[in-house]
Amino acid sequence: MQATEVPTDIPRYMADLGRRARAASRVMAEAETGHKNTALAAIAEVILDQRRELSEANRVDLDAGRARGLDEAMLDRLTLNDARIEAMAEGCRQVAALPDPVGVITDLAYRPSGIQVGRMRVPLGVIGIIYESRPNVTIDAAVLCLKSGNATILRGGSEAAHSNRALAGIIQAGLVAAGLPRDAVQIVATTDREAVGELLRMERDVDVIVPRGGKGLIERVSRESRVPVIKHLDGVCHVYLDARADADKAFAVAVNAKTQRYGTCNTMETLLVHTSRAGELLPRVAAALEQHGVELRGCESTRALLPGIGAATEDDWYAEYLAPVLAIRVVDSLEAAMDHINAYGSQHTDSIVTEDWSAARRFLRAVDSSSVMVNASTRFADGFEYGLGAEIGISTDKLHARGPVGLEGLTTQKFVVLGDGHVRT
Amino acid sequence: MQATEVPTDIPRYMADLGRRARAASRVMAEAETGHKNTALAAIAEVILDQRRELSEANRVDLDAGRARGLDEAMLDRLTLNDARIEAMAEGCRQVAALPDPVGVITDLAYRPSGIQVGRMRVPLGVIGIIYESRPNVTIDAAVLCLKSGNATILRGGSEAAHSNRALAGIIQAGLVAAGLPRDAVQIVATTDREAVGELLRMERDVDVIVPRGGKGLIERVSRESRVPVIKHLDGVCHVYLDARADADKAFAVAVNAKTQRYGTCNTMETLLVHTSRAGELLPRVAAALEQHGVELRGCESTRALLPGIGAATEDDWYAEYLAPVLAIRVVDSLEAAMDHINAYGSQHTDSIVTEDWSAARRFLRAVDSSSVMVNASTRFADGFEYGLGAEIGISTDKLHARGPVGLEGLTTQKFVVLGDGHVRT
Repeated sequence: MQATEVPTDIPRYMADLGRRARAASRVMAEAETGHKNTALAAIAEVILDQRRELSEANRVDLDAGRARGLDEAMLDRLTLNDARIEAMAEGCRQVAALPDPVGVITDLAYRPSGIQVGRMRVPLGVIGIIYESRPNVTIDAAVLCLKSGNATILRGGSEAAHSNRALAGIIQAGLVAAGLPRDAVQIVATTDREAVGELLRMERDVDVIVPRGGKGLIERVSRESRVPVIKHLDGVCHVYLDARADADKAFAVAVNAKTQRYGTCNTMETLLVHTSRAGELLPRVAAALEQHGVELRGCESTRALLPGIGAATEDDWYAEYLAPVLAIRVVDSLEAAMDHINAYGSQHTDSIVTEDWSAARRFLRAVDSSSVMVNASTRFADGFEYGLGAEIGISTDKLHARGPVGLEGLTTQKFVVLGDGHVRT
Repeated sequence: MQATEVPTDIPRYMADLGRRARAASRVMAEAETGHKNTALAAIAEVILDQRRELSEANRVDLDAGRARGLDEAMLDRLTLNDARIEAMAEGCRQVAALPDPVGVITDLAYRPSGIQVGRMRVPLGVIGIIYESRPNVTIDAAVLCLKSGNATILRGGSEAAHSNRALAGIIQAGLVAAGLPRDAVQIVATTDREAVGELLRMERDVDVIVPRGGKGLIERVSRESRVPVIKHLDGVCHVYLDARADADKAFAVAVNAKTQRYGTCNTMETLLVHTSRAGELLPRVAAALEQHGVELRGCESTRALLPGIGAATEDDWYAEYLAPVLAIRVVDSLEAAMDHINAYGSQHTDSIVTEDWSAARRFLRAVDSSSVMVNASTRFADGFEYGLGAEIGISTDKLHARGPVGLEGLTTQKFVVLGDGHVRT
């Protein structure tokens, strides 16, 4: 089937896509690192070579988007300008430079029976990526899956259909140039929503679904999928300024965690302050935040110290604003701060600012979030900052992958057992 | 609520159980290894001290079971005799002796930004165990969850209700003796099926469900659960006798993999033999298996070599007999053997018998099963044999835990970030 043909029998089309992906995944699982890196380098080259064709495909999407009245933010996310095209190519090269996790054997040891037992890291198999408007996800996700030895089925948003098709063509050209199966990265060539429903039911041929997009998408996928999902829900992140916080660190971390970027999941949404330090720390932090244009909403004690700010309601403690808004609460103790985080947080990223050894040690152990920090901005919760090289997302699940998901999160481990005719007695 | 009261408002009762478990899980997550080990030792002691009360509770179940016409195999599984009671106590002591995975920090390293990033192993939180008749699962599962710092909600089969209640009392006595929360191990005090439905929907207060029992139970749990499930489905395990198999090892491994025990998931269900060796190897293996009373079903080529055996149908290649029955197929190549395993197997445990280095290396990498073996009996796929100390089950899932699941599989990892007022620029 040509990429430009639009399939009509969707269940059959998707089943075929799944079978091809499964077959390709068997080849990819055995592909040598050198071949995968050659493919990644080839993809980077083709991206740059076909920069003009890519821009033209993108222009078709942008024109259609404008005609349909997409807002400026949406159009911006949809745009593939020169800088973004170069960043995609650079991303491929960076992933090529990462160590290959596949095939690594750990803990291989002799057991009393005489067998050797260890674990080998292996690809998950077939990964379905469901994403919304940003077409660069097509490259970012595909290359991470490729390097980790998986086959990928990509389902992008309808607004980016032409851009995505052009990008899929580029990826497949790179795969073929390196002698790897073209079907290792396939794009769903229909924007029909039925195709997503099918993908979520393909338990036999799809091993995991990674949804990337807004809350609506992720909730639909989690609810409907019979395939396991690696998902990222809310980031309701906290910074707690402890009784023994250093004032300058408290100021730096609180302001950075809120203002360095507003729309990211690792941005602080609620600031907690120990009652013994609120009078000293809050006015200075609040002044800086208000200078950045951040709207503050506080508890009673906070409002007594910062007259004029709005009142935080119960809803505010649960809110992921993704905007220049911050909830502030004064707490009586470390215990109360952790209780607040456990009750209202989303188990994403939480940080304590303190010079108190025992408080830090306690917070690190007891706070049940994917990233727990001491004296550091929540904005550090990120695959690049953590040294994973790149991330396909940040998981808020507890099972399998938790926190930023890099190449390792796209793999699993199997046991290997080596013997010499050993039998169990 | 007393353990002997039977709850009437099931949703409310289960919600209460969940809240208590969540609260207990926070304490357990911070519990020191020494305290957990003290609790395990106390449980072992109470088991032995209350051996008579336990036998009496068990007798009530056995009498009821006989009255309800349970078959001998069911009654046997239900029985807590002296040997089994001692084995439960010994199991507690063995788990106490295992290293505690909780709190272990790995890969802590400085990043270019100056922060330190590492991973800390932490409990999953609250684990729901749903199991069938064998009451010793109550102890086995509870102590593994306890050592790994989780809180547990146990839902056993109605046939073992009295035994399970007695065991839960023993566990709680041990917890309290060690100063740990009684609610860290709770038993669902109703055999109403509605309680299971509730448990599977308690996403907020239950982090993972582990079903242990027959296929019907596991399929129901997988289908209905909104909580992630660590599940164990079929074990359709293969042994492949390669073109370059050593004849004696082939004989030993094939006979052991089938006959060492019939009812276990790691028992071989299909034997694959390279066509060049079938004439030499099959008659000897078949003779030994028939002496053990194993019924053989073969492909055309097999039947030509072993006249008188039944024909294997397509269904046989998919079958998990759990009985003295074996399907045999002659294949043309290593490739054909792996294709058969990937097409019909259940990705549980598969073994190649060969002296051929490249064939072994290829099989280890390419076969997509939770345990892949060379020259070893599939019967080794087991938590004790692998050195995990004990297992809560064998996962046939790819995500999170794959293969035998020990203490580590009941934990997850979070990122820890240590700074000194570091902010992101």
